[in-house]
Amino acid sequence: MRKLDAQAIEDIALGAALLGTGGGGDPYIGKLMALQAIKDHGPVTVISKDEVPDDALVLPTAMMGAPTVLIEKIANGCEFKKVFEAMEKHMGKKIYATMPIEAGGVNSMIPLAVAAQMGVPIIDGDGMGRAFPELQMVTYHLHGVTSSPMAITDEKGNMSILNTINNKWSENLARALTVEQGGSVMIGIYPMEGRQIKACAIDGVMTFSQEIGKAIRESSSHETPPVEQLLEKINGYELFRGKISDVRRETKEGFNFGTVKIDGIESYKGETCQVEFQNENLIAKRGDRVVATTPDLICMVDLENIIPITTDALKYGSRVLVIGLKCDDQWRTDKGIETVGPRYFGYDMDYIPIEERLKEVW
Amino acid sequence: MRKLDAQAIEDIALGAALLGTGGGGDPYIGKLMALQAIKDHGPVTVISKDEVPDDALVLPTAMMGAPTVLIEKIANGCEFKKVFEAMEKHMGKKIYATMPIEAGGVNSMIPLAVAAQMGVPIIDGDGMGRAFPELQMVTYHLHGVTSSPMAITDEKGNMSILNTINNKWSENLARALTVEQGGSVMIGIYPMEGRQIKACAIDGVMTFSQEIGKAIRESSSHETPPVEQLLEKINGYELFRGKISDVRRETKEGFNFGTVKIDGIESYKGETCQVEFQNENLIAKRGDRVVATTPDLICMVDLENIIPITTDALKYGSRVLVIGLKCDDQWRTDKGIETVGPRYFGYDMDYIPIEERLKEVW
Repeated sequence: MRKLDAQAIEDIALGAALLGTGGGGDPYIGKLMALQAIKDHGPVTVISKDEVPDDALVLPTAMMGAPTVLIEKIANGCEFKKVFEAMEKHMGKKIYATMPIEAGGVNSMIPLAVAAQMGVPIIDGDGMGRAFPELQMVTYHLHGVTSSPMAITDEKGNMSILNTINNKWSENLARALTVEQGGSVMIGIYPMEGRQIKACAIDGVMTFSQEIGKAIRESSSHETPPVEQLLEKINGYELFRGKISDVRRETKEGFNFGTVKIDGIESYKGETCQVEFQNENLIAKRGDRVVATTPDLICMVDLENIIPITTDALKYGSRVLVIGLKCDDQWRTDKGIETVGPRYFGYDMDYIPIEERLKEVW
Repeated sequence: MRKLDAQAIEDIALGAALLGTGGGGDPYIGKLMALQAIKDHGPVTVISKDEVPDDALVLPTAMMGAPTVLIEKIANGCEFKKVFEAMEKHMGKKIYATMPIEAGGVNSMIPLAVAAQMGVPIIDGDGMGRAFPELQMVTYHLHGVTSSPMAITDEKGNMSILNTINNKWSENLARALTVEQGGSVMIGIYPMEGRQIKACAIDGVMTFSQEIGKAIRESSSHETPPVEQLLEKINGYELFRGKISDVRRETKEGFNFGTVKIDGIESYKGETCQVEFQNENLIAKRGDRVVATTPDLICMVDLENIIPITTDALKYGSRVLVIGLKCDDQWRTDKGIETVGPRYFGYDMDYIPIEERLKEVW
């Protein structure tokens, strides 16, 4: 158990934005929400998943929708008070703690704001170890945990409780509501008992995010940020360095879809790299060759200050470093690959672990 | 209080299909559901709205979506058991009775099937006195009754409870779910106490439907059905007689949209009539002249047997009689016109009561 102060939150926001692999929303917006909540309600208590009583009810909380929308459609601040009330009434049980469903600029911060506001601890764990675009893409799903009942609310005050027959139906129905409600909503989903959290949550995402964020913060003031030091810290692979030459982007069906093209610089001069995304970066190609695919993490940072860049902030001319990271082992199982592998997203290719892809001779 | 037998149900289905003004679904499907429920569970008790205790909870029940879809996507029979359970749990109160929200081939029958299955009475009243395509188009809405909480379920078992900030939001969110869930769902909506029903429900729709149905049944066996007798019985206006020469139809956003053109016969020879619909018939024109608009009722019956024709059963070559009926006075108030008048449906014209329109010299 430990307490988080404002500096910790700044670092977590920064580090989680890297793990967000381009998605997970603008860390600036998320951070403001969390810092404000801590200012209003005091510091947040973080506990490890092992500290949760087996029968305690935990409700993961998040924003759902296209992160670009959230910038213009700010929360009213009462959403999660209503989500807690609705879920506690519906389930007939008090909520003991909250936690993130994913790592990302917004969705790492929202549970912190919720924990501060509702006076409950936050668990140092999540369901992805990164960000993914759909609700069934969590390790909870791999273990057969149901996303129902799920609460969805918006800044206007509409509140729905969904009980679906499976997690893909939760995704479909919640997505339809998200689009109808203006493109972003606040949700409470995958209510779980402590024993379930222990069995299937990915451990330590908040601590890891904080370490990454601290490393970025300490490096980014250097005239030439020590990229190698960061890569070593996060056990990452350098995939490409270059200047963004083209960004194509489309917001449809509640998602941000797009492609970014990068012209190589330094040792990559003369080469190009292309990254395709659906909220999160999914596929990275160097020339014609695939160098990393989902569920491994494909992250981009600004070469000037090694600060992570979300897909909605990509812009022509930026000099970026593309980084690859191994995903959690749970994603490398058959059910994991089926749920979040390249074929799920419509790419006709097998998943090959990033370390295997990079072993091949160039 | 009275009991309904199979013949009564046949008559109600027939009569309600006329009041459905082209919408409200196929009376054959609806009737089968109600007859089966009565066969399985015994006859249904009908009570008048004055017989409901002031504090008793009443839950109107219905199908939502494009009626054409229901033909290929039959209910599994357990939908309303689940709706009752979910709403009773959510509201913490036992449901005393059900009732229709509208008159129509399917939505007059579904509450009968629900009443039989759940062993509760059905109230002889509704919220439209006809059919309309959207959820806020009920007299309950005119009196400020909220549609929330609302339950939505499908034949697969997905169950949502919506609590919205107003009735138009219920329509929007429920419509988005309806489309996502395959185009038709079963709903429980506008839960009301007895005192609210007494204040705002339209009285006697079931009795009136049954009388119309009986009149049609008794007339339809005649070689030349006595149309005048039916018109007198229902206080209706003959608007046109002709042969359908064109039907345009489109299912989009969960609705059936379309236009039907009719070439005049007998005393209408040389003239044409056009009726436009969104699930229900909205506007009838004789030549260039508007002869009836929503909220007044525009109904079509087959000239061979005076059986009502729903918009999804309109076909080239049918000989039809177009009938107009005055709507309930509640629809003729300012809020009524705003809610269901021609402008709401995108027509740039004022509402003029049908009896005024028909007074004008031809």
